[in-house]
Parts: sequence; structure tokens; C-alpha cells
Amino acid sequence: MVESATKKIFNFSAGPCVLPQEVLKQAQAEMLDWRGSGVSVMEMSHRSKEFIEIAETAERDFRELMDLPKTGYQVFFFQGGASMQFSAIPYNLLGGEKKFGQYLTTGAWSESAIKEAKKISSPVEIWPTSGGKFNTVAPSADWQISKEAAYFHYCDNETIHGVEFPQEFPFDLVPEGQPLICDMSSNFCSRPVSWDKYGVVYAGAQKNVGPAGVCISVIRDDLIGTHMRKDTPLLFDWKQFRDAPTKMHNTPACYPIYVAGLNLAYMKRIGGLPHLEAEAKRKSSLLYDFIDASSEYYSNPVDVKYRSRMNIPFRVKKDDKLEAKFLKEAQEHGLIELKGHRSVGGCRASIYNAMPYEGVEALVNFMKKFRDENQ
Amino acid sequence: MVESATKKIFNFSAGPCVLPQEVLKQAQAEMLDWRGSGVSVMEMSHRSKEFIEIAETAERDFRELMDLPKTGYQVFFFQGGASMQFSAIPYNLLGGEKKFGQYLTTGAWSESAIKEAKKISSPVEIWPTSGGKFNTVAPSADWQISKEAAYFHYCDNETIHGVEFPQEFPFDLVPEGQPLICDMSSNFCSRPVSWDKYGVVYAGAQKNVGPAGVCISVIRDDLIGTHMRKDTPLLFDWKQFRDAPTKMHNTPACYPIYVAGLNLAYMKRIGGLPHLEAEAKRKSSLLYDFIDASSEYYSNPVDVKYRSRMNIPFRVKKDDKLEAKFLKEAQEHGLIELKGHRSVGGCRASIYNAMPYEGVEALVNFMKKFRDENQ
Repeated sequence: MVESATKKIFNFSAGPCVLPQEVLKQAQAEMLDWRGSGVSVMEMSHRSKEFIEIAETAERDFRELMDLPKTGYQVFFFQGGASMQFSAIPYNLLGGEKKFGQYLTTGAWSESAIKEAKKISSPVEIWPTSGGKFNTVAPSADWQISKEAAYFHYCDNETIHGVEFPQEFPFDLVPEGQPLICDMSSNFCSRPVSWDKYGVVYAGAQKNVGPAGVCISVIRDDLIGTHMRKDTPLLFDWKQFRDAPTKMHNTPACYPIYVAGLNLAYMKRIGGLPHLEAEAKRKSSLLYDFIDASSEYYSNPVDVKYRSRMNIPFRVKKDDKLEAKFLKEAQEHGLIELKGHRSVGGCRASIYNAMPYEGVEALVNFMKKFRDENQ
Repeated sequence: MVESATKKIFNFSAGPCVLPQEVLKQAQAEMLDWRGSGVSVMEMSHRSKEFIEIAETAERDFRELMDLPKTGYQVFFFQGGASMQFSAIPYNLLGGEKKFGQYLTTGAWSESAIKEAKKISSPVEIWPTSGGKFNTVAPSADWQISKEAAYFHYCDNETIHGVEFPQEFPFDLVPEGQPLICDMSSNFCSRPVSWDKYGVVYAGAQKNVGPAGVCISVIRDDLIGTHMRKDTPLLFDWKQFRDAPTKMHNTPACYPIYVAGLNLAYMKRIGGLPHLEAEAKRKSSLLYDFIDASSEYYSNPVDVKYRSRMNIPFRVKKDDKLEAKFLKEAQEHGLIELKGHRSVGGCRASIYNAMPYEGVEALVNFMKKFRDENQ
């Protein structure tokens, strides 16, 4: 948050979103001259030793923060967001004998993922009755799981619908030997990942990690180049990137990688995942507890078991007009970007790593005040 | 350039590359609080009115700088660099009756473009004997032009080989009604474009326009969605992006778009294309004239008619050892990133819009000194 001329701002955007002030200040201080190099990071060749150092440091800090095994996985800073990986996944994994993947759809983003797979294959939908509502996950007894699929894809946290898997996904339901692929865009770096359970984890960085333009993708070595379709476009081609000098086949989004790197180092400094996970719980509980205690006025539609710690959709008396007033007045109080996604309406508070506890307190205080003034 | 602790730096990188100090200073000043919004541009939702204003202003400044007609063309700020458009072009244009494009290959980048097209089609190479050397363009009598192709693709300036088309491409050789597609990555915004001759012009921004992460793509309306393959991946899909709110289907590389926008406004302020074009001629002539006057020592391999104003490859006595010494001492004099591309070796000076005339003067002075000291 920033002390602007009139007020303190708390930014609840679903992404791109709030970044730590310390990270922004460091980027600002280094803008004209990165550590005596005489040039801005934005002016560096991606092949220069300076930028390679920046990218390698970012990867090292990421691996340490996330406790990623030293070998067995490649880390990429791709362009194109998670949406590009929606396409890259079937291209990279359906060139072998197995011709389809299976998808658990629990919200808008996993639906977008299967939509891309459908362009070049006939993916299986594990829970085909899910469509539309998306406020829980069906009991696993209802899941129609294929043993023949090339991979199993799901989304760990649905940004729009506010549906998140509890700490552990039910890994035992994934058929043996079938790579588990996960879109972790909106809860990445907020809790540990059981890496040995995953084949691919990918995440648009513009939530918990950095600015827009980078999709951090962690891909198990044996999935790179082994089952790739021959017509895989260059930008989707995990093997080309792995084999390129310092994993940059073409020019990456250098500056967003640099800022993500500053934030990865910062997240390590302030206590790493134990701290971030505890804070995510503390912040989201504060808001959920208040919503539940005010259920005649505010409501969250998601099954308690699958409530997201990151994205909290809520309604104000289920009244569009009142919500418009709520959003307007919240903004006047410095609480910005609380509008729900246009596809679902209502309100949504996104509470990522960089949102301070006092921001959620300010929101809850405003919600109390608004309720009392608008009975 | 920057006055660092010891010396002034001139950055001859082929991209990402030097940016105007004024642009970097503005980005620095606005880093924590964009114009009273209380948030950094990096923290803004791409759907916020503030960021939409930034993107729309960038487009407006681009259109004015480049004198793009008010209607008939869409401007996109895509991710993935020019390399992603290498794939997007055949996907968007080969879904109709015409099943192949034709490619004029004049260097490494146009070769990369045809390589992507080959993955899903059988493109025609207009000048198939070009391979390997790339220091001129064959007389147009040798061009094998197809009237049946869906499009005609070429690269206006080959960054690695330093081959640039003179002011006007021979437009009359393009069969009537066949869209002309041009990769202008490394000479974009350095001279006027005859827009009515082009169907698509695309350019990675990280040369003359801004930081890496943005590919400015100008696409004629009638080419969007009319001949698209059904299996076109989302990130390549020009129609999806055109039809999305403010042309952002997914989150773009917001901060690079913002900095490119600052630079587009800056380029307009300092005199626009007439100024930039005159400077490009003045700066490149200074270096070419010196090289030609020292031809016993320095040499540029490119046919004079096709010499690039942007990227000037040169050899030092065609002696690898001497070139290593040259590069080391140049760096000590603050003249950085003069190494030639790894595929061709030697040296290369990239002289983009933001390189000041005094930078080229400093390079020429150093080259004189080095020659006199290393006879």
C-alpha cells in the first residue's frame, strides 16, 4: 500500500495485484543502473552475463523457497501466461501412444484448460456434471477417472470462483504412472508443494510472485520431449527451451523475470513458505469469520471445505444495486479492485502474499460500517 | 547511457537494448505511485481503468507516430515475441482454400519464420538458394513467386546478418490481392511504413520501442478470423484477442506495454519518424563510412544496397583473436555488447533509436585507436 495524497490504498485485485513495497522500492532504486553495470535491467541483452545472473538467481531463489528437488525438474520462465500452457500441455504430452488427457473442471480456469486441449484431442472430463455453478468439488466417488489418459489435469485454486483444494489434493486417485498436471496460478508460493506427486506445475506469476508476463513452469525431466507432437509450435516446445542456452530460446520478458526474482528473494527473507502459509490462513480466516458471522448481510457461496485462502467472492445482500454502492464507497475508503469477475458478478477480495493483514482488517472494518449504515 | 562510477556506458546490444534515459527516469519516478493512483503500474489489474488508459494511450501514440490509418487495422500488444507470430501467421491465414504461404528468406529470422510454417503446411521459399551466406538479396528476377500462395512473408531487417531492405520493398512483385506480411522487429519505428501495402506487420518491441515482452502487431481487419484454422491455439488467435474487452483476452505483459508507451510518447516528442529516420541515417553512415575508409582493417560483409541502418556486423582483420581483444578493450572503454551473434561470430554494433550520435562517435574513435595500436 501507498500513502497517497489523501489515503492509504489496499489493492484487492485478482491479478496483476499488490506487490511488496520493498520489492518496488528496490526496482525503483536499480532502475537506471543495475548494481554498477551502468545499464537498466530493461536494457540488458538476455544473453548478457548480467541478465543470466538475474535469471539464474531467480530460479535458485524459487527452488529454495519452494523446496524443489535439486534434480529431476526444469524451471522455466515462459511468456504467454497460464493460458499458453493450456495449449502447450496437450502438444507436449499427446504425441505418443496415449492420445488424450483427463481434466477435473472446478471453475472457469480449468474449463479454459480443457477447451484448448479439445482443439487437438478428445480430452475426458472427470466430473462432467460440474459445469456452471462451481462452488464445490464433487465427492471423489463421482469422479470418472480414466486409466488410459496421458495425464491428469486440475486447477489448485480457481481465481474467479474462489474454489481451492485443501492442503493436499487426493493424490491416491491419480492412476499410477499418470503425470499429474496442475495450474497453480493463483495460490502458488502460498504453501508447500508435494513435488514428487506432480509432473507439471505452472503458474502465471502475477498473483503471489511478480508482475504479469511470466508463467513459472516446473516440468519433470521425463516429460520433456518424450511424447511431443511433431507440429508443436516453437513457443510451446518445452524441449527447445530446455536445450537453448540458459533455457531462453527467444527473448523472454526480462524485466518481469527480474521483479519476480526480487520478490522471490524477499519472500525467502521474510520467512518463506511457513510464514506465507500462516499469514494466508490468518488473513483469509479474518474475512471468512466476519462473513459467516454476518450471514444475513454478506455471503460466500463456496463449500467451506473448498474455500480459497486467496480469492474470496462474496455478495452484499445478493443485491446488485447495494453492491454497486458498496464498491463505490469501498473505493473511496482506499479499498480498491473489489469487484467480482464479470462472469459471476458480486464482489471478490483477493488476498495474495503481498496483502498485509491490516489491509484485510481495513476491509472488515469497512464492511461492518457499510452494513450498519445500510440496513 | 549512464555516468557510472568510472565511465560512460554505450550499449550496442541487438536487443533488449538501450532505452532513452528520459523514459527510464519517468518509469522510475512513477514506480511506486502511478499518477496519484496509489499503486504501481505493476500492481494494476489489466482490467482497471488506469491500465486500460495506459494501453489505449500507448496504442494512440503508436498510431500517431507511425501514421497508421484510423480504420482498417487492429493494433495488438501480444506476448511471445515475433517468434510467436511465426506460428500465429500460418494458423490465422491457412484455414481457408489457400493452404500455403510464401517466404522470402534473407537471414536467420526469416528462416525461423518459415520453419514454423513448415510444421503445419508446405510453404514455398521464394529465393531457395539464399541459405547460409545472407549478405545480399538476390535480383528479383531470381525470385520464384507463387500467385497461389495465401500470403507473402519477408523480414524487413535481419538483425543477425545486418541485411535491410532499402526504404521501399519492391511491392509491385507481390501478387495482387496477396497479403504482404512483414517481420519488422529490428527496424520498426525508424522510418515510415506504407501501410496500404501490408496485411500484417509485427515487431518484437525490444529494439526501437521498449523492453522485452511485447510484440506490437498491426493486422488488417479482413485478415482476422476469416481464414483461421479451427485448431488455432488461443494465444495465436487474432480474432479472440480482437473480440476480447480492450483486446486483452488474457493478462498481457502490462509493465513492458507501459514502458513501450512511455517511449512511444517520447519518440513523438523529440520529432517523430522524420527525426528518427534522419538520425538512423546519420549514425549508421558515420560507422559505415569509417569501416569503408579502413577496409584493410575493418570490414562489413553486406552488399551496400542492403546494408542495415540498425545492425552493423563487422570483422576486425577477419581475425578471431584480434576480435576477442577488440571486444575486451571496447568493454573497458564503456562500449558494451559489441559481440556478433554466436551463429556468425565477429562483431556487431546495433544502433537503435535510443543510441545517441555520440555513442557511435565514441565507437568510431575507439576503432581508430584500436587500429593504430594493433597494426
